[in-house]
Formats: sequence, structure tokens, C-alpha cells
Amino acid sequence: MSYTSFNPPVRTLMGPGPSDVHPRVLTAMARPTIGHLDPAFIAMMEEIKGLLQYAFQTGNALTIPISAPASAGMEACFVNLVEPGEKVVVCINGVFGARMKENIERAGGVPIVVEDAMGTPVSPDKLEDALKTHRDARIVAFVHAETSTGVQSDAKTLAGIARHHDCLTIVDTVTSLGGSPLKVDEWGLDAVYSGSQKCLSCTPGLAPLTMNDRAVDKIKQRKTRVQSWFLDLNLVMGYWGSGKRAYHHTAPINTLYGLHEALAMLQEEGLEHSWARHRHQHLALRSGIEAMGLSFLVRESARLPQLNAIVVPEGVDEAVLRNRLLNDYNLEIGAGLGALAGRIIRIGLMGYGANMKNVMYCLEALEAVLADMRAPIRTGVAMNAAQNVAVPN
Amino acid sequence: MSYTSFNPPVRTLMGPGPSDVHPRVLTAMARPTIGHLDPAFIAMMEEIKGLLQYAFQTGNALTIPISAPASAGMEACFVNLVEPGEKVVVCINGVFGARMKENIERAGGVPIVVEDAMGTPVSPDKLEDALKTHRDARIVAFVHAETSTGVQSDAKTLAGIARHHDCLTIVDTVTSLGGSPLKVDEWGLDAVYSGSQKCLSCTPGLAPLTMNDRAVDKIKQRKTRVQSWFLDLNLVMGYWGSGKRAYHHTAPINTLYGLHEALAMLQEEGLEHSWARHRHQHLALRSGIEAMGLSFLVRESARLPQLNAIVVPEGVDEAVLRNRLLNDYNLEIGAGLGALAGRIIRIGLMGYGANMKNVMYCLEALEAVLADMRAPIRTGVAMNAAQNVAVPN
Repeated sequence: MSYTSFNPPVRTLMGPGPSDVHPRVLTAMARPTIGHLDPAFIAMMEEIKGLLQYAFQTGNALTIPISAPASAGMEACFVNLVEPGEKVVVCINGVFGARMKENIERAGGVPIVVEDAMGTPVSPDKLEDALKTHRDARIVAFVHAETSTGVQSDAKTLAGIARHHDCLTIVDTVTSLGGSPLKVDEWGLDAVYSGSQKCLSCTPGLAPLTMNDRAVDKIKQRKTRVQSWFLDLNLVMGYWGSGKRAYHHTAPINTLYGLHEALAMLQEEGLEHSWARHRHQHLALRSGIEAMGLSFLVRESARLPQLNAIVVPEGVDEAVLRNRLLNDYNLEIGAGLGALAGRIIRIGLMGYGANMKNVMYCLEALEAVLADMRAPIRTGVAMNAAQNVAVPN
Repeated sequence: MSYTSFNPPVRTLMGPGPSDVHPRVLTAMARPTIGHLDPAFIAMMEEIKGLLQYAFQTGNALTIPISAPASAGMEACFVNLVEPGEKVVVCINGVFGARMKENIERAGGVPIVVEDAMGTPVSPDKLEDALKTHRDARIVAFVHAETSTGVQSDAKTLAGIARHHDCLTIVDTVTSLGGSPLKVDEWGLDAVYSGSQKCLSCTPGLAPLTMNDRAVDKIKQRKTRVQSWFLDLNLVMGYWGSGKRAYHHTAPINTLYGLHEALAMLQEEGLEHSWARHRHQHLALRSGIEAMGLSFLVRESARLPQLNAIVVPEGVDEAVLRNRLLNDYNLEIGAGLGALAGRIIRIGLMGYGANMKNVMYCLEALEAVLADMRAPIRTGVAMNAAQNVAVPN
């Protein structure tokens, strides 16, 4: 076998992530590699910490990217905060809540499940009930923005309930960070992780993470050793801390260049402007989708602008639909996961990809393919509907 | 605070890794991101598997890059292969053997330590003795190429002893892969991990890993669940397997572009040519180093060509030496670790960086700075000595 250089096709990425990466971020990733203990690199690490604090809206000293994909950010929270035998209330309303439960079990914890249907937000009442029943639970875990359905839960309310019951919160913000309001300190979230490849428009491979002093104290007071060496935050903090750096692992240098650039761009745009842009492009997409006669999985008040779960019209094979969009239009959208496989498609409007060009292209392509598949949709109206929604600069 | 784009200084990387990354690899990393379930991406994953099989000299079906730095590759081996309560013989002759012991403990295993001094190879006799004493041990772990000292151990002999005692081997080849002979199948190594940022000249962030059927069978027969969700090879195999892909995590797309390019370059050059090139550049460096009157930590027969541990001359503050090389010459070399901190410097000749230009530049810079620091060295002879060593194309 002999292999030559890989030249990927140029796609438009409107699935659940990775999203379209901005040329500035790609360019940053190609800059010359330097050492991971180089003073110039350490200065950049400090800037990344500051930029992530801004993105998370937090003053937490422990605000860093974990050197691995978002799944490892999730695992970092659980293996550090959960001790064997400990009860953890976990709210499940989608695939990523279910993954949290797996993480709790593997960390030796005892999951107490609060369940809501896929596509509906986590119920604060059910959480309250669970905490009244399990008064010895000290941790509550939930997903702020469920990537599998595009539903957002009320993180502020859920965190308030958890704190009232003297519980720490572990919160998944993989799909929310940078794309819709997330205020770690104001909402009182304790341990929060995210991913680089969604609304930050960076390449996958890094998991931004932030923890406040309450969470860090719990880690410092552990009776047992953290089961993961790679994810042990006692060691990771020595590497990312502000004092003398202790070598832990070799950071993914060039991917961090990309994250730095993505975060600098977020700061240039302004976080609130970015949230508003995601919201406006979502409204444009929604107008077009509804004009076609398609419907959303999630009720309006709980919809994430950056991830749109749309019900597959009757008689349409969604795998065929997605394949045609990919092959004929170089357009990637996402499939349903778990119980929703085959029943929904997921259209991402994330980061750099949340722009009018993508919205119009997606609507055009979707209409053309669905019409060709003889789906029961209205044609010739979607683009106009979308364009009528005011789009900010 | 306001941050602008990060433009790293252009360094020459001659430390223990990351090594200089080839422009082709950097360019590959800047190619447009595509989805991690895109058929084009999956085809590239298959090519990476084939290319890694070549680099490792193995036919193992399970030959993949773990989506995280080499430390996570180490952890992947231990959390998958070690079950709680299981005895593991671990050979320690440097920092990374000691890290293996930590991993065994955190996986619930019972480490049986075979110790050798830093800078000397693992003793086959000591391993044999340990296995005779601990007949219930079923795993032997050792480091093929100790990055902390530049010593290589006789992996083939150690693996033979392990197999004779019906033990699986876990072998660290982070610094050897691509740089010096490593023959996974011929030597009978069972579970082997490496890193992308050493002799493959790729950016850090990926851990090539290969396991044969004996190792995979042990994982499949586990009585307990793998404690890590992210590193559970039962799940990772579903993602990287040759059948239908099951979504596990989002792979670091662009870093994998880089690895693909680095491996394609290794194949173009030829593995044996790469080994010879590392060896020749090492001989050139050695001639210059010895002409200056400096000496190596490791005895000649056990030296790794790609990592040269050189004893710091009397009266020289090695931190000052390294800082001056970095600041005045943009040249990064490595410090000693652990007990060797302050006593050695480590000069890497890895991958793309193993070239005559780097060797000459390093010798020039080292001589100039040491002379200026009034170190007891011979001057004016090193470059000539190095040039007299024949250098292959």
C-alpha cells in the first residue's frame, strides 16, 4: 500500500459539530510548533485561560482546556469530583446525560437518575424531589445544551436547587459555550466542561473546563486517589497553574494555537454579539423550515439556536436525505441519536458557521432534495421567509 | 484584557519532544475540517491504520491513534489490560517507568517493581527473577526508549522472557517509533503505545497504539468494566473498527490530518532509511560532543540515537545554559528530569529534526554558550569532527 497526502473535500459543516472552522483558526494551527514548556507558549497558555474565563463568564482560577476531546472533559469532572460509593443525582434527557451516568458508574459512584423525555428540558421539580429523597447526595449533574436533541435546560434554576440542597453541580456546556447565554459565576455553576469544535469554531480535540473553589476544595479533600493519571486535576493544575510549571503531559501545541485564535475572535466579536448572531440565524433558518411545512422536535421556548432538531417528514428516509446533501451539496447535517435515530435530522448553526450564507444554502439544498424525494413540503417559499427575518451585521 | 493572534517564535526544537514539525505536516493541519463520520474522513482513518501498522511493523488489526497525548496512550493500555488486584511487573529505569507504576496503582493493580538505575537499560536477569518470584503475574510493563535518559532496553529479549512466563507485555515506545528499530510482531510485543510528537515529527496530541489478539482477548475477557469511558478500547474499537462506525467521541480531525501526512512521509522515506538517518545524525552529533570533551550519560551500546543525554560540565548551571540557547539562538534543548535534574541536558534528534543543519547549529550554539560560560571544553574542533562523519542522503 502506498498513501499520498490527504486532501479533504471542502464541506459545509452544519451538523452537531465539528462546525465550519474559520480560516484564521486553520491558519493559526499551521504556525510553527514550539515547546510546551517554552516561555512564549506558557504566556499563550495564560492568555487562553483569560479568554476562556471571558467565554465562560467566570473568574475561576481553574479555567483551562483539557488536552483531549470534550468526552474527556466530561470524564475529568466525574473522576475528580466523585468518590467511590458517593451518590450523584444525574438528570437524563438525552444521549449526553446518559453518558454522564456511565461516567458516574465507572468512577465508582451511585447514580440517582432524574429522567425526562428526549427533546424536553430537565424538570426542576423532578430534581427537587430527587434531592429531597436522597438527602445524602452531594453532586448534581446535568446537560445545559443537549446536543442530541437541541434542547436547553434552565441551568440557573437547576444549579440554584442543587446549591439549596448543598450539592455541587457538574454541567455539560459542550454545545452552549459561545453560542447561547452561559454565565458560570452568575448562575452558580461549580464544575463546567465544554468542547472546542462547536460554537467556538475550532477543530475538535480540546475540552475547555472551569471549576470554582468549592469544586477544587472537594478534589483537594478526596480520601481516595483520582483513578485517572492523565485527568487528575491535582496534576493538571500543576501544569496549567500560575506558579512554577510541573511537567505533566505534552500539550497539543498547534491545536491550542487554534483555540487561542478562536477565543480571540470571540472576544473581538463580543460574547453577547455572538449569542445574538446565533439567535438571529436560527430565526432565519426557522422561518424557512416552517415555511416548508417542517416542524421542530423541541418546543420553542426551550430550543437551542445553535442546534436545530427537525422532524423528518413522513415517508422520507433520513439516511438517504443526508447522503444526498453530503454527496450532491457537500453539506453535512446530523442524524438523530439513540431513540431519535431516523426520526430527526440535526442542523447546526455553530460559531463561524452561524451565518446567512450557510442558512440560505442549507434551505436551498434541503428543499431541492426533499422535493426530489417527493416529501410533503411546500416549495418556493423557504428562502423568502428566511430573508424576511432581519439579520444583524 | 484584549488579546491578538498568537505568533510563536520560530524555534529549533532539539529537546525531548515536540520535535521540529515538517512544513508538509503543518500545511496538512490547516486543511478544511470535515466531519468525523464523513466517508472521506473514515477512508483517511483506514489509511492511518495501515500507515501505523507499517510504522509499528505489525499486522495487528487494533492499530490506531488514541485521541489524546501519549500519556493517555499509556493510561489506555493499563486501564484496559489491568484488572483490580492483578499483579503487574513493572520495570523502572527512569521517569516513564515510574509513571507506569502510578498507572498500575490507579487501575487497581499491584505493581511488582524491577528497578534499574536511571541511564542503564532494564536488566533481563532482574525481570526473570521477578517473574520466578511472582508466578501469578500475567503482565510485564517496560519502556523501550526512556525519554528521561535516552537509554534503550532490549525489548525483544524482555518480551521473550515475559512470554516464557505467560505474561503479556505493555511497552512504551513513545521515543522509539520511527526513530530506531522497533518491530512489534517480530519481537512479540503485545500492547504498545507511542506519541505523535517525537520521531514522527507531528504535533503533540495523539497516541499511536497497537495491540495483538492476545491483548485484545484479555480485554474482552475482563470481569470488571474498564474504569475510563473515554479510553475504553471496547468502545474505541467500535469507532475505529472496520465494520459500521459507532459514534464514541469526536476525533481531533486536523491533528489526524497532520499524523496522516507525517506517516505518509515516513513511508515515502522508508522506515529503515529513517532509522539509519537518525543513527547517522547521532554519530555526527556524538563526534562533535566528544570533540568538545563532553560525555554521554548512557553507555554507548544502549544509547538512543534520537535522544542524547549529555552530562553537564562541572561549574555550569544548566538552566542558564538552556535559557541562553533558547533566548540567543531560538534553540530548545531539554533539561534532566527527576534525579537527573541539573545534571544532564537532553538533545533530541527526532524525525524531521534529525538533520545535519540542526546538528551543526546545535554544536555551534552549544560551543559558543559554554565557552562564554567558561566551561571546561575544547573549542574550535566540534564542527569539524561532526562533518567528518559521513552523512547519508
